[in-house]
Amino acid sequence: MPEFMDVHHNMTGLTEEDLKAAHDADLAIQDQEGVTFKKTWADPESGVVYCLSEAPSADAVRRVHERAGHPPDEVHPVPLAV
Amino acid sequence: MPEFMDVHHNMTGLTEEDLKAAHDADLAIQDQEGVTFKKTWADPESGVVYCLSEAPSADAVRRVHERAGHPPDEVHPVPLAV
Repeated sequence: MPEFMDVHHNMTGLTEEDLKAAHDADLAIQDQEGVTFKKTWADPESGVVYCLSEAPSADAVRRVHERAGHPPDEVHPVPLAV
Repeated sequence: MPEFMDVHHNMTGLTEEDLKAAHDADLAIQDQEGVTFKKTWADPESGVVYCLSEAPSADAVRRVHERAGHPPDEVHPVPLAV
């Protein structure tokens, strides 16, 4: 299954509780789109959030995040990894 | 040890061999700056590369990448993760 990295900007001030709630909202519906969110990292100061997932397509990743209420600003396939 | 996500842009056309060579160049000197690069993901089509590391500071991450010949465009602490 391809991997994707998606990016959210403008999340300045995000707390650990906010991040967990957003992630849980994704997990609750991800199976409906065939997506598995593997890990998420956030910088509350610059407001950037990175999410690593396995998914059938970038659109599937985007749909889960949109339906959960936090559409991503970027979704990139990451076919190379070391 | 704090975690950091750094981002490189304009790496369009990067191959798996390029990525491995760049990563190996980081690994060869990372101990000198107290940095541990944990994982790197790349999208050759849009040219974006994400590197996850543990490091004493963002400057330490930047120094390793600069000395290895590929200065990052962004370095963000990522104190939150789920």
